[in-house]
Amino acid sequence: MMNWLDSLRWDRDGLVPVIAQEQSSGDVLMFAWMNRDALTETARRGEAVYWSRSRQRLWHKGEESGHVQKVHEIRTDCDNDVVLLKVTQLGHKPGIACHTGRHSCFFQRHENGEWHSVEPVLKDPEAIYR
Amino acid sequence: MMNWLDSLRWDRDGLVPVIAQEQSSGDVLMFAWMNRDALTETARRGEAVYWSRSRQRLWHKGEESGHVQKVHEIRTDCDNDVVLLKVTQLGHKPGIACHTGRHSCFFQRHENGEWHSVEPVLKDPEAIYR
Repeated sequence: MMNWLDSLRWDRDGLVPVIAQEQSSGDVLMFAWMNRDALTETARRGEAVYWSRSRQRLWHKGEESGHVQKVHEIRTDCDNDVVLLKVTQLGHKPGIACHTGRHSCFFQRHENGEWHSVEPVLKDPEAIYR
Repeated sequence: MMNWLDSLRWDRDGLVPVIAQEQSSGDVLMFAWMNRDALTETARRGEAVYWSRSRQRLWHKGEESGHVQKVHEIRTDCDNDVVLLKVTQLGHKPGIACHTGRHSCFFQRHENGEWHSVEPVLKDPEAIYR
């Protein structure tokens, strides 16, 4: 039996892109990256653990903010090179996935050649990261 | 006014990752990449145009299969380095985004160290790509 981690196609940096989707609403919350250790830890804990490319270390989502992602499903696509997590976003209601204090990181919408913020800030980031 | 394309953070290959989400259901259909030309064409046509990394050319989704994606919204995230499309998947009901003939490319679910296909094939790929 091939290990489920071996059957993924890790990129030249040893990473796969990861989409986190809120299970209850279907909302796409965020996008991040995982290496093998991050995905192993995500499966073991049942909580999302990403690889932070900027900090070059494992990043247990919510470790500072408390906005942990409980993982219900781990999926991959037809090419085995992308991961989709179905999650519940914990720590605030409604869930806050974005470091800007918004529900989803995808809050900017293209309109006539400009990006417009179209989702409200649910909590001041200064109150999230004290 | 900064061009909306300039404000995106293109990677070292001049690409951004793109998530296509079905507007009506919230289902994540597929994941692909765009360069500037692909995103420009997507906005102009109102249909998804990706950059095929394997073929190294623009790929108007559905050009062979007829499974075109009508684009309702183009979004980006807090880091300006990922694009989210809200689409209607045309050409079949229910929509088929995957080259395997499934609704979504994310049809493999992790269960106890193995990947399991958990979504049905809606149309034989041999009938899609004649």
